[in-house]
Amino acid sequence: MSRCLINHETVKSFIEKCMVAVGTKEHHARSLAEVLVEGDHRGHYSHGLNRMDMYVKDIKSGICAKDGEPVVEKESASTALVDGKNLLGPVVGNFCMSLAMKKAKEVGVGWVVAHGSNHYGIAGYYAMQALKDNMIGMSFTNTSPLVVPTRAKECTIGTNPISVAAPAKDGDSFVLDMATSAVALGKVELHDRRGDVIPEGWGCDAQGKLTTNPKEVLNGGGLVPIGGSEATGGYKGYGLGMMVEVFCGILAGANYSNNVRTWKVTDKVANLGQCFVAINPENFAPGFPDRMTDLLSIQRGLDPADPDAPVLVAGDPERTNMKKCQKSGGISYHISVVNYMNDCAQKLGVSPLLPTDKIDSS
Amino acid sequence: MSRCLINHETVKSFIEKCMVAVGTKEHHARSLAEVLVEGDHRGHYSHGLNRMDMYVKDIKSGICAKDGEPVVEKESASTALVDGKNLLGPVVGNFCMSLAMKKAKEVGVGWVVAHGSNHYGIAGYYAMQALKDNMIGMSFTNTSPLVVPTRAKECTIGTNPISVAAPAKDGDSFVLDMATSAVALGKVELHDRRGDVIPEGWGCDAQGKLTTNPKEVLNGGGLVPIGGSEATGGYKGYGLGMMVEVFCGILAGANYSNNVRTWKVTDKVANLGQCFVAINPENFAPGFPDRMTDLLSIQRGLDPADPDAPVLVAGDPERTNMKKCQKSGGISYHISVVNYMNDCAQKLGVSPLLPTDKIDSS
Repeated sequence: MSRCLINHETVKSFIEKCMVAVGTKEHHARSLAEVLVEGDHRGHYSHGLNRMDMYVKDIKSGICAKDGEPVVEKESASTALVDGKNLLGPVVGNFCMSLAMKKAKEVGVGWVVAHGSNHYGIAGYYAMQALKDNMIGMSFTNTSPLVVPTRAKECTIGTNPISVAAPAKDGDSFVLDMATSAVALGKVELHDRRGDVIPEGWGCDAQGKLTTNPKEVLNGGGLVPIGGSEATGGYKGYGLGMMVEVFCGILAGANYSNNVRTWKVTDKVANLGQCFVAINPENFAPGFPDRMTDLLSIQRGLDPADPDAPVLVAGDPERTNMKKCQKSGGISYHISVVNYMNDCAQKLGVSPLLPTDKIDSS
Repeated sequence: MSRCLINHETVKSFIEKCMVAVGTKEHHARSLAEVLVEGDHRGHYSHGLNRMDMYVKDIKSGICAKDGEPVVEKESASTALVDGKNLLGPVVGNFCMSLAMKKAKEVGVGWVVAHGSNHYGIAGYYAMQALKDNMIGMSFTNTSPLVVPTRAKECTIGTNPISVAAPAKDGDSFVLDMATSAVALGKVELHDRRGDVIPEGWGCDAQGKLTTNPKEVLNGGGLVPIGGSEATGGYKGYGLGMMVEVFCGILAGANYSNNVRTWKVTDKVANLGQCFVAINPENFAPGFPDRMTDLLSIQRGLDPADPDAPVLVAGDPERTNMKKCQKSGGISYHISVVNYMNDCAQKLGVSPLLPTDKIDSS
């Protein structure tokens, strides 16, 4: 028995209760619960329930604000600067993305940046909100420094994700949601725990040399930008990470680069910078959803190099995971994660705990 | 004697004369000349004088329009859709970028897309125009299909570049200008001509397998997206290439994906899609240029892994090339390129030809 199935609403309500138990405003707790469960639903377990204790700890310690609402500091027809008031990332993210969408409906584009924010879960969650109104959505955040710039030895940029969602016909869509590092830190940690080597191009050691030993990446080394070494174009991934920093920390006047607090160290306020964009295709050439559908079909219809690995478009792996959840009637969690979270909850006096009786036998 | 030095203005005037000789409107010819010489000046010889004959041929054959001006088809406070009227790419690009900047000054963001465009030279040229007004500039274009999506065997996306320029203090800046393929096709061609192998992660063969043989990439294979193979994150580069296509061909209603004409085949109108964005930092947190300068200093000040290879930021290699040009008093061209272009010009009755008497002995 290694995995169990739990219904979405059950997980959401559990996370909400844990957050409320440490003093979080109810609708803030709900916002966080929704983003985290959507992360799991899409198969990004590194950004879901698995991280609940980090948010609980941040609220409990007071390093993240439990009350208040984000405030618009400056505004024009198409832009806004928001003070996130050190609230939970999803509270700031939802506020900013709604504002960007409102502006895009009015003038075609909405570009909203926030300082004073915190971890906001999967970047794609915010970009995808624009899909509901048939618009293009984008979302960016800076993060704790985990990536070593090309030619350097030290982490000075975050995994700084880029998310872009664009609507096609009949509910189909393109959803890019990617860190600008070659891989997420979690993947390196997983290989380390298993005692496996990592592919060359994921991370470097403390001397800035590419390594296949996950321990060297985790102890003094760092992740490398997409593209890997300089010879294979790693400077492009580094440039993209910097672009995200320009849109986030620099434009918003938040912390940036190696001024952002160290990953998993919560000795000071995060003050992350985030950027949310909505673009209304109706302001451009008619027929956008039809062309999107055609663009996706062209790629999906390609003859694959390996007959067992079909050509996908961004968002397809997540779509597969969501279908699996629907079929099995819940999200599949490793029992150790569920037990750990139930322990956390018990200490907070939360009940009922997550059920562990429905085994995922798939 | 392999390289000669030629003054910028001399090259510009030469390109202008060649273009006018085939019937291009004078200020259109000037726009093209400026972008191409700026490409060379920045060290991107693949996008400079070296490509003049392609533009000459396009105008001469009538496949690209020699007269007219771009037209705004649809407009809002922050957006515009432009019909490039099949004019030279730089004519369309300058028109759109000016419009985006005007809108950004008024409402904070300008987002302008064009259909009916042609090759526009280096993407960075347009993004950098925003720097003159202390704004952030972005530029994207789709291109002929040269890149094979992850898991596929066939080229269905272009090298689709992303350029983002952001101003720092005292004329310093961040200038990202990158294809979303691991490398440019020209780099593979160069290795082929020299008989060298290419690093793994640049291109694939006709079966979609990564190869180190440049001939296999050029004959039926293709470039791979940044990140290389699926294991090292190539699907991210593929996703970024698709994102550029969404902003360009799809938003503009231009040709897209494998509907764009084959590279170097000019049997039909290009009808490229392009996207130009300006963002005014004054609409966001005060002190943008100071933070930009600090962000760049943090990276440049890092201890390098190799003492002989300092840590750079996007735009620094081009800055070095421009300083070299200034010091030597001209742009350094390989004599074979100059002779080839002089031959082209002679056939068009252009004089004076490019001078070849000043040898680059650096």
